[in-house]
Amino acid sequence: MTALDFEKCGGLIPAVVQDFETGEVLMLAYMNEKAWQETLRTGKATYWSRSRNELWVKGNTSGHVQLVKEICVDCDGDTVLLKVEQLGGAACHTGYRSCFFRKVEGEAFRIVGKKVFDPKEVYK
Amino acid sequence: MTALDFEKCGGLIPAVVQDFETGEVLMLAYMNEKAWQETLRTGKATYWSRSRNELWVKGNTSGHVQLVKEICVDCDGDTVLLKVEQLGGAACHTGYRSCFFRKVEGEAFRIVGKKVFDPKEVYK
Repeated sequence: MTALDFEKCGGLIPAVVQDFETGEVLMLAYMNEKAWQETLRTGKATYWSRSRNELWVKGNTSGHVQLVKEICVDCDGDTVLLKVEQLGGAACHTGYRSCFFRKVEGEAFRIVGKKVFDPKEVYK
Repeated sequence: MTALDFEKCGGLIPAVVQDFETGEVLMLAYMNEKAWQETLRTGKATYWSRSRNELWVKGNTSGHVQLVKEICVDCDGDTVLLKVEQLGGAACHTGYRSCFFRKVEGEAFRIVGKKVFDPKEVYK
């Protein structure tokens, strides 16, 4: 396979995650080469958690797994776009459908997203 | 305004850029604080070019400016989503509508995007 450029940004590339049906952008996460290979191998979106410093199979705790339907690669080979089926209906750990649930309005951020679950119920 | 976290990744945050009408993901670029402020001030998507190490008003050379229709901020405040009107119909410097014009198919990347312009004609 034409290689992705993992070296440009210290071994990590950003992955934009989009709902494969609605086109809604759900989140952005990072992949190292291992996460990329695991995503291809398993069909489940797998990232590198920068906060926990470990491989992160999205949804392993919450059950909100992302089934990968399609992957596109950008012109520079240093960013990927995952089109996924989001199990559980929400990608964000705060319970919102998308991590981008706040809209910039003047000097403020206004919540415009849809809350799908209560984090207290999911992450016990 | 609630602040964005520019420090987490060396002063730069990723900006996912989406067509405001179709929802197509067009590109990913990076912003430093100055680029962010300029984007807010002018309404034209402005990034930090990591290759040229300079502020980059998207479309200044090609005319393919991105007019910002909406901005969303993610849960961690370290990624933004721009919904834009892409003038000239293409975001990618290669002439494709989206930078994500290649799809992963097994071991290969297959071109699936739509070419809108000839780079030789645009970047003279």
